[in-house]
Amino acid sequence: MPAGQQQKHHQVPTYPPPESEDEESWVWSQIKAEARRDAESEPALASYLYATILSHPSLTRSLSFHLANKLCSSTLLSTLLYDIFLSSFSAHPPVCAAAVADLLAARHRDPACASFSHCLLNYKGFLAVQAQRIAHLLWFQHRRPLALALQSRVADVFAVDIHPAARLGRGLLLDHATGVVIGETAVIGNNVSILHHVTLGGTGKAVGDRHPKIGDGVLIGAGATILGNVRIGEGAKIGAGSVVLIDVPPRTTAVGNPARLVGGKEKPARHEDFPGESMDHTSFISEWSDYII
Amino acid sequence: MPAGQQQKHHQVPTYPPPESEDEESWVWSQIKAEARRDAESEPALASYLYATILSHPSLTRSLSFHLANKLCSSTLLSTLLYDIFLSSFSAHPPVCAAAVADLLAARHRDPACASFSHCLLNYKGFLAVQAQRIAHLLWFQHRRPLALALQSRVADVFAVDIHPAARLGRGLLLDHATGVVIGETAVIGNNVSILHHVTLGGTGKAVGDRHPKIGDGVLIGAGATILGNVRIGEGAKIGAGSVVLIDVPPRTTAVGNPARLVGGKEKPARHEDFPGESMDHTSFISEWSDYII
Amino acid sequence: MPAGQQQKHHQVPTYPPPESEDEESWVWSQIKAEARRDAESEPALASYLYATILSHPSLTRSLSFHLANKLCSSTLLSTLLYDIFLSSFSAHPPVCAAAVADLLAARHRDPACASFSHCLLNYKGFLAVQAQRIAHLLWFQHRRPLALALQSRVADVFAVDIHPAARLGRGLLLDHATGVVIGETAVIGNNVSILHHVTLGGTGKAVGDRHPKIGDGVLIGAGATILGNVRIGEGAKIGAGSVVLIDVPPRTTAVGNPARLVGGKEKPARHEDFPGESMDHTSFISEWSDYII
Amino acid sequence: MPAGQQQKHHQVPTYPPPESEDEESWVWSQIKAEARRDAESEPALASYLYATILSHPSLTRSLSFHLANKLCSSTLLSTLLYDIFLSSFSAHPPVCAAAVADLLAARHRDPACASFSHCLLNYKGFLAVQAQRIAHLLWFQHRRPLALALQSRVADVFAVDIHPAARLGRGLLLDHATGVVIGETAVIGNNVSILHHVTLGGTGKAVGDRHPKIGDGVLIGAGATILGNVRIGEGAKIGAGSVVLIDVPPRTTAVGNPARLVGGKEKPARHEDFPGESMDHTSFISEWSDYII
Amino acid sequence: MPAGQQQKHHQVPTYPPPESEDEESWVWSQIKAEARRDAESEPALASYLYATILSHPSLTRSLSFHLANKLCSSTLLSTLLYDIFLSSFSAHPPVCAAAVADLLAARHRDPACASFSHCLLNYKGFLAVQAQRIAHLLWFQHRRPLALALQSRVADVFAVDIHPAARLGRGLLLDHATGVVIGETAVIGNNVSILHHVTLGGTGKAVGDRHPKIGDGVLIGAGATILGNVRIGEGAKIGAGSVVLIDVPPRTTAVGNPARLVGGKEKPARHEDFPGESMDHTSFISEWSDYII
Amino acid sequence: MPAGQQQKHHQVPTYPPPESEDEESWVWSQIKAEARRDAESEPALASYLYATILSHPSLTRSLSFHLANKLCSSTLLSTLLYDIFLSSFSAHPPVCAAAVADLLAARHRDPACASFSHCLLNYKGFLAVQAQRIAHLLWFQHRRPLALALQSRVADVFAVDIHPAARLGRGLLLDHATGVVIGETAVIGNNVSILHHVTLGGTGKAVGDRHPKIGDGVLIGAGATILGNVRIGEGAKIGAGSVVLIDVPPRTTAVGNPARLVGGKEKPARHEDFPGESMDHTSFISEWSDYII
Repeated sequence: MPAGQQQKHHQVPTYPPPESEDEESWVWSQIKAEARRDAESEPALASYLYATILSHPSLTRSLSFHLANKLCSSTLLSTLLYDIFLSSFSAHPPVCAAAVADLLAARHRDPACASFSHCLLNYKGFLAVQAQRIAHLLWFQHRRPLALALQSRVADVFAVDIHPAARLGRGLLLDHATGVVIGETAVIGNNVSILHHVTLGGTGKAVGDRHPKIGDGVLIGAGATILGNVRIGEGAKIGAGSVVLIDVPPRTTAVGNPARLVGGKEKPARHEDFPGESMDHTSFISEWSDYII
Repeated sequence: MPAGQQQKHHQVPTYPPPESEDEESWVWSQIKAEARRDAESEPALASYLYATILSHPSLTRSLSFHLANKLCSSTLLSTLLYDIFLSSFSAHPPVCAAAVADLLAARHRDPACASFSHCLLNYKGFLAVQAQRIAHLLWFQHRRPLALALQSRVADVFAVDIHPAARLGRGLLLDHATGVVIGETAVIGNNVSILHHVTLGGTGKAVGDRHPKIGDGVLIGAGATILGNVRIGEGAKIGAGSVVLIDVPPRTTAVGNPARLVGGKEKPARHEDFPGESMDHTSFISEWSDYII
Repeated sequence: MPAGQQQKHHQVPTYPPPESEDEESWVWSQIKAEARRDAESEPALASYLYATILSHPSLTRSLSFHLANKLCSSTLLSTLLYDIFLSSFSAHPPVCAAAVADLLAARHRDPACASFSHCLLNYKGFLAVQAQRIAHLLWFQHRRPLALALQSRVADVFAVDIHPAARLGRGLLLDHATGVVIGETAVIGNNVSILHHVTLGGTGKAVGDRHPKIGDGVLIGAGATILGNVRIGEGAKIGAGSVVLIDVPPRTTAVGNPARLVGGKEKPARHEDFPGESMDHTSFISEWSDYII
Repeated sequence: MPAGQQQKHHQVPTYPPPESEDEESWVWSQIKAEARRDAESEPALASYLYATILSHPSLTRSLSFHLANKLCSSTLLSTLLYDIFLSSFSAHPPVCAAAVADLLAARHRDPACASFSHCLLNYKGFLAVQAQRIAHLLWFQHRRPLALALQSRVADVFAVDIHPAARLGRGLLLDHATGVVIGETAVIGNNVSILHHVTLGGTGKAVGDRHPKIGDGVLIGAGATILGNVRIGEGAKIGAGSVVLIDVPPRTTAVGNPARLVGGKEKPARHEDFPGESMDHTSFISEWSDYII
Repeated sequence: MPAGQQQKHHQVPTYPPPESEDEESWVWSQIKAEARRDAESEPALASYLYATILSHPSLTRSLSFHLANKLCSSTLLSTLLYDIFLSSFSAHPPVCAAAVADLLAARHRDPACASFSHCLLNYKGFLAVQAQRIAHLLWFQHRRPLALALQSRVADVFAVDIHPAARLGRGLLLDHATGVVIGETAVIGNNVSILHHVTLGGTGKAVGDRHPKIGDGVLIGAGATILGNVRIGEGAKIGAGSVVLIDVPPRTTAVGNPARLVGGKEKPARHEDFPGESMDHTSFISEWSDYII
Repeated sequence: MPAGQQQKHHQVPTYPPPESEDEESWVWSQIKAEARRDAESEPALASYLYATILSHPSLTRSLSFHLANKLCSSTLLSTLLYDIFLSSFSAHPPVCAAAVADLLAARHRDPACASFSHCLLNYKGFLAVQAQRIAHLLWFQHRRPLALALQSRVADVFAVDIHPAARLGRGLLLDHATGVVIGETAVIGNNVSILHHVTLGGTGKAVGDRHPKIGDGVLIGAGATILGNVRIGEGAKIGAGSVVLIDVPPRTTAVGNPARLVGGKEKPARHEDFPGESMDHTSFISEWSDYII
């Protein structure tokens, strides 16, 4: 691993976790250790850290508590939301595993992400995505009014608007996140990074399946607008401010308004190592420019 | 009506209302029926639905209650806002009629709009527009500090920033709405659809009348920026991400940064049926691409 | 001073303050006078004006109170934030002086800014910047978790996301402000005006110093995206919706996606009068188009 | 009027109001004048005074606002209560008149009552009684669950527990009020004064009409307990800490546990002037000992 | 059953529950039916009834939710309390059974108790006792600071102050409840009724076991004060306002300050039927005077 | 020190503090140590303990924060109260010293007082007295409306009603405190203990100085009512439930309704050691019966 890469990830603790531990436990123990350290060094924040992290026995309880307090309103009480989040997480372990993957994604890809607890507490993109994962469950349990109410609270509180029916992969990073809009029939693969003000929208020509399909390992720059049922191939990159109305082949970059393609990768040979769960994917991303803020 | 159209609007109940009913009563009865159905199927949401809709005798009371609870803060109490909204609606029936028109617009133009109550409760664009309509009244009653305080609360809560002096037509749809900015001297016609991140701004060259004038039936795509006292003709369309500094003739499309015109409609013959209050306008809009998300 | 200029600034009270008064006292006395006038003419707002302005003995107490009540949450209490803001302002007078300069900037450059108190109470850009100035102090006092918590609250409440480590000059105007994102190593000079949806981001190629450097007196239009460690020279102008990946020389305009330079000023002769603290800088800005909304 | 009397009432403004004014308008104008004076002399309280009094056009709106904000909870929103109070007052002018009579009672009988606004804002006894008057209306409109919910909120917030069905006369003073308990079939005449910890309870022997009947002009000392369907004659006095299980004749005093009668008034000659609306009743009360705190 | 008794309990549904149902399920089904009926007849309360009762699957969840929202504060969040209540109830079924017994006690003994849901929602005595039962568990789990914090919240919110270590029997009715104080080493048997302002206190002579022991089926009238480690025998009655410093034999009445004994029951023959869980105990109590309000 | 005494005070740490420390610092260090221990053993309470105690640099800041959050309402914001409390404490060190003396009094006299932090956080009597001390300052600074507003908040929140003008000595213990009412011209000496439901009221015969004067070291039992400008001599004791209308000589006990004197102390020889600041006073109090709960 080159020195720069080393420097970039300098704050990330040794990974993977010891054999004896599962990923969630390991991340949760990191989060508690970080929060304990911060609570000691910053008494003004200790109350907040105990309330949100240190008083909880697990990541899902901490996350349920934090989301419930962020998203509650005078007419949607925190205890109600807390119940919904807790029972959804406990009935659907993959949703919790996806949250862990998202935490790892933020921690490894975003140089401004100082710690797992920083992401858990402060990243509105992370929190919006977890709320959507719950809303997604509710949507397909035919609890649509509740799913839409959650979408609305997330849109108010975080200015992130993701339809409950959209399908989101694991390891998703919404960096900064303000203004992201993702439509009903959009599908996002694994290990995708999306900057703020990105739209995955429809074109109005169709009524049914009308939103973009984003492949694994895709990077979408700030302010990009992708419209219609187009395919963005795995490992592709969409430049900041682009307006994309056409398919983008795998490992290809699209830029401009309207977007044009500016050269795919010559050697898709190492295809197998970019989209997966492996950390190599991260080094692959680090070759790209203009996506990290 | 063609099959596709039929499918698109499949969830919209029979319209127009029976002769014996006015439009507001009809929409309100739809909303109550929807809320009653949702409260029955989803006990977790019933409290919210009763508080916001089912305990109220009219649309304006429900809307006043909902807006007051959304926009209140620790220094602007909900009871104060509720008073202002209620008395404004009762003294100005056209403001309520405009809200009804906006509900119909969302319901008929946005395929993701599942019901009237969904729009009333969850659409930040709808709520922001109604708050602006009230602020607009206050502005011209020389209650400007109060109007500006409302604008500020809407900007904080919904991330939608519309100057109280801007003039908004009926049947306005702000879809997703996050990031919309509309300046002081902007004028928007009837039956206009505006996506998120759209700016109707000034150019700094003038001090007085310095913002765009948007004609009836115009569609403005996500992220479009229109600057200066330019005219966007009726039925025109502004592509997503465009930067428009010039007039756009009626029924013409402008795209790109800076925007160029890409062909007006050959036959303005059927001009009479696109901008009006009629539902035919909707089918006209459905010919366009790229505006629905 | 030409008539237009006169008209534009018609509402700004005589400036500079009398010799016997410092700038902060003068602005504060203006704010109190405005609030008193508004409280008298609008009883519905009087409670709010007393709570936020008229009950306070100084600008910093008023601002601390207002920010604390805006940014508090169920897990970050207003009294805690109030303490932090008050003690930061009192220990760091330049932070308060910068707030005064920002108030003057909004008042003189934005024709929609009706009064100083309007800016203090309602401008989310102004409030977000002051919160960042406090977070910046905390960051360099090695209270990083607290600084990041503040950044997060500002991102939630105002949809403005400025890293605590970013260095912001005096006289900064974030107009409308929704969606502004400013990265960790960004530097902004004095008397800069930035519209909403502007990004000062990184490119991912570098890990350390990776964000733009904005010179004095620069104007950045709505939705512009500037990426990487590039220099935007003093007095330069970035057009709305531009995507800038390269250096922009002083007094030059960049527009488009990707941005191209469209003619620097021929005569940098009067260089001395544009970036400084002087009000002439404002008249200089008023020559530009497309930045005011 | 003797000097002592004069001194006692020294702060009470000239009464009755000028011929041209009704009692409610006169009291309301006094309250506004007091609040205006206090807001000027105490900026820290001005926001509170504007919110509760000075921003309202009438006593009933001010009282509805104040009660709604005092009695609301996370599950009974202030806007809901505000609606109920406002509509009850406007449909039942005698309820408002009774509130005015209660304000006059507190002002004239309690030497610690500094002003009408002091009573309106701060007297939990006054506020509890007004809430009960509304609950009483609801009870007899067959809205019993709502009436009981109001009783419960008053019991929580003010520690005053009055059954909605109890009938309360005008000019009622609950001084200090904490711990007062009044049962379902109790009846209280006009111009009665009741200190804190007083119980008007049942005996369990009967199921129907089982609580005390209190005549006009009665005074009940702190901690007195009156049980069963007994009659306390007009102008009688119950000593502090007494336990009363028997009828008490008019103008007689009962003291002790169990209470014994300690001498009725020899001359009921001037009977006609003690219970009525007249202020003479007050001078009559002032002959008694041990009831004012 | 005599006619009077019949009348007294006229609103109580048929009891016991059908064989196929346990007591908790039966009471819970009654509560839901009552709430459903009230929600239908009173839309203004429907939101509250859904939030507190109708959206919950069980009595313990409803009670946990309601207590958490009543007892939470700005520094003790509702979600935290909700967690504690829920986990305590689910780990200790007898605590839930005691709550059911308390509901039945209120419903059968208090003629003003209109329904089970009325007691669950509105009786501060009922709610205070349930909170103490939880605090009692925590106290003996060596979580004393938490138990004391709960005691404090109950004392603030309900003005009922029961030490977490006190041992409370089943079927306990605190009627009105305001001002009840029960000390650390007090013990209360089953089926006891206690009116408001009752003190079970210490005398200061002893440090260890220093508070009263109350036998089964005892009735303590309003304002009674019982001090020291004295025994109040089963079925005894303490008159309102009494001050008791001595033992009171079973089925004996004590009245006065200081209290004297006023005749035990001649025939303790039917001893077996008064203290137990049986409903006959209620008819026994109904012979007494002066305790019901 | 006898064994019983030893046992009673077993949890009280060594006193007095080391020579090098002042009393306030010593008590504050004890409080922090207790809170730290509790936060470690009870994660669910850690957030609360950090917010109220551990994040604060001094007792007065902790107390100001805690009172502000307890007493705030939707119309009296916590930041406003916090400001008032903080500035009062810092301008009046004796008020803080009195709070310390009150903490010591609770800790040494009340066997149920487990720790200083328990008293600081949970004793409504302690908190009500500190709020009154602040209100007392405001009263004599001619800020009477604010003082009365504070009295009202304390009466609502703690059910303790002490007029701001009443003069309270140091080392005051209001045990349980619910229902305590203390009138305008009452004076209370040092080291007085008052149980709940105690009234120090007026008799209505006088208008000016009309409330009781309580000497040093007096103990007043639960529910006692003392009316009129009578003197309760130093070291006297008033029995629970007494009604006192006459002077009580020093070191004498009064009991009953109406109260009679039951034997003064024969040997006032050791007069010098009972009322003072010394801890011997406590052992003196421990000779009494019936006051501790």
